[in-house]
Amino acid sequence: MTNFSKLFNNDLNVINVGLDSFADSLKEQGVSVASVDWKPHIFSKSPAKFMCEEILSSKFYKEIEKANLKVAEIIQSAQPMIIGIGKAIDDIPGMDNKLFLHAGPPIEWERMSGPLKGAIIGGILYEKMASTVEEAEHLAASGDIKFSPCHHHNTVGPMAGVVTPSMPVWIIKNETYGNQAYATLNEGLGKVLRYGAYSQEVIDKLNWMETVLAPLLKKVIDLKGPIDLKSIIAQALQMGDEVHNRNRAATSLLIREIAAFIIQADASEKDKVDVMNFINSNDHFFLNLSMPASKSVMDSVSGIENTSLVSIMARN
Amino acid sequence: MTNFSKLFNNDLNVINVGLDSFADSLKEQGVSVASVDWKPHIFSKSPAKFMCEEILSSKFYKEIEKANLKVAEIIQSAQPMIIGIGKAIDDIPGMDNKLFLHAGPPIEWERMSGPLKGAIIGGILYEKMASTVEEAEHLAASGDIKFSPCHHHNTVGPMAGVVTPSMPVWIIKNETYGNQAYATLNEGLGKVLRYGAYSQEVIDKLNWMETVLAPLLKKVIDLKGPIDLKSIIAQALQMGDEVHNRNRAATSLLIREIAAFIIQADASEKDKVDVMNFINSNDHFFLNLSMPASKSVMDSVSGIENTSLVSIMARN
Repeated sequence: MTNFSKLFNNDLNVINVGLDSFADSLKEQGVSVASVDWKPHIFSKSPAKFMCEEILSSKFYKEIEKANLKVAEIIQSAQPMIIGIGKAIDDIPGMDNKLFLHAGPPIEWERMSGPLKGAIIGGILYEKMASTVEEAEHLAASGDIKFSPCHHHNTVGPMAGVVTPSMPVWIIKNETYGNQAYATLNEGLGKVLRYGAYSQEVIDKLNWMETVLAPLLKKVIDLKGPIDLKSIIAQALQMGDEVHNRNRAATSLLIREIAAFIIQADASEKDKVDVMNFINSNDHFFLNLSMPASKSVMDSVSGIENTSLVSIMARN
Repeated sequence: MTNFSKLFNNDLNVINVGLDSFADSLKEQGVSVASVDWKPHIFSKSPAKFMCEEILSSKFYKEIEKANLKVAEIIQSAQPMIIGIGKAIDDIPGMDNKLFLHAGPPIEWERMSGPLKGAIIGGILYEKMASTVEEAEHLAASGDIKFSPCHHHNTVGPMAGVVTPSMPVWIIKNETYGNQAYATLNEGLGKVLRYGAYSQEVIDKLNWMETVLAPLLKKVIDLKGPIDLKSIIAQALQMGDEVHNRNRAATSLLIREIAAFIIQADASEKDKVDVMNFINSNDHFFLNLSMPASKSVMDSVSGIENTSLVSIMARN
């Protein structure tokens, strides 16, 4: 269990709105918690019903309806494809050498949560901008590194979502509308940057991903051509995945698509075996494809006037 | 649509018991059909209910119940594993150089259906026991080749189910009870021996399976060790397969198990790519594993006295 007192480095006084188990976890760690006796109004008017009634009674109803039909058509006809593997600094729009992207809305170093701070520290060590954790923390707080939400750069990242300039990224194109989305490659389970870990083991794996995994997969995409993510996701949803916390079918179907090309790629047998084992050992490998696939679909309806559909929600 | 008049080489007078669409198909081809006005007694006493009542009222009820509990325990604790790839003549019990196995109960050449005759002809050509279809038919009718049901030899075959001495076979072991089962490797879709096709294309593919596919997969099993089929089948059933007419999940999960070992196997890059593409292009590749897996499970309860469970049903 995460030790929240240590994580936040200060004394907490928590007001808990929601499940008692959240409060219980904190109490066990000696944190002062007050629980609010509150439940969502599921038996009176639901928020969804309230919103529908608001829309139906709006004098802009026809404009909203028209915009929503257009948005639905754009989403349904979207066609997310893997078109390549690039590097954040070269491919992500607006990326620069001193910019780190992160999950959630804009936030400055001081207000970042422990796991996000951990991932930023790991990113600085991986980029060799500092050689110790203390140096990295100092740099992060100095203002010399800028922080920006992934969503401001057509990018998504799981959990802490940190993307640094040297990281390899999937390039996903919505073929129907021409827009692109980006995400890092999934690190697997265990100690990983996305949960805020920054030990040498984490940095070593990021280096291997940059120097072995990504170049080999880039060769695979070059040999094979674009990979249809909509087809894989449509099948995986029928096979029990929701392509967020369960990606076993999607990862399996992706492996089928690329296995013959991994054999043909110009690389050593050891690297091919390591890459195949890395992907096979991590059912969440596809998560970092379902996320930018969805991003490329939803970005294509971003900015359409009068729609009541929310196309981005960011947290963490 | 199959032309039944041609297939059976004689004038047919058919009595149809069951769906009208069967009779309609024959009528369209000018075959004389009489339809029997018959339906299963689903609204009176069902056969299942009848059988249950027979068992419950039997003076042997306690013996049957005891045997069935034992059988259920044996089936549930069975553990089918791929332990190797062999050759019919070397591995299948009771196989000999002039013996062909087939699906269904014992049958002589004259009474075989068209597709089974076709598969026998293809098998003779593949074995180079004849060089023309006419020679093959003559040999098949001569009595020089013996025919025996797959089930008499711990073996299963899909559709026509023909197994000839030189064919490579999966060797499946029920690790819990030590018994083994065998099946040929799935030929894929299109023109295939199991549907009675015997053109050069079919024979060429069988030769490739014997000389390239099977030796490479044998190396994979030797490198990797036994593969747990119960685990793959249990997952695939949750992913929408019934592992008979849908094997997409099971074939995908199998590919994940073996892909890294195909890369490591001692074979040419071309053969590795061909093998990977062959398996990936055929979702039914796993069918010839789910069948002997089930066979190895059900053979382990064969011969147990007093059980009311049927452990083998053969048709075709």
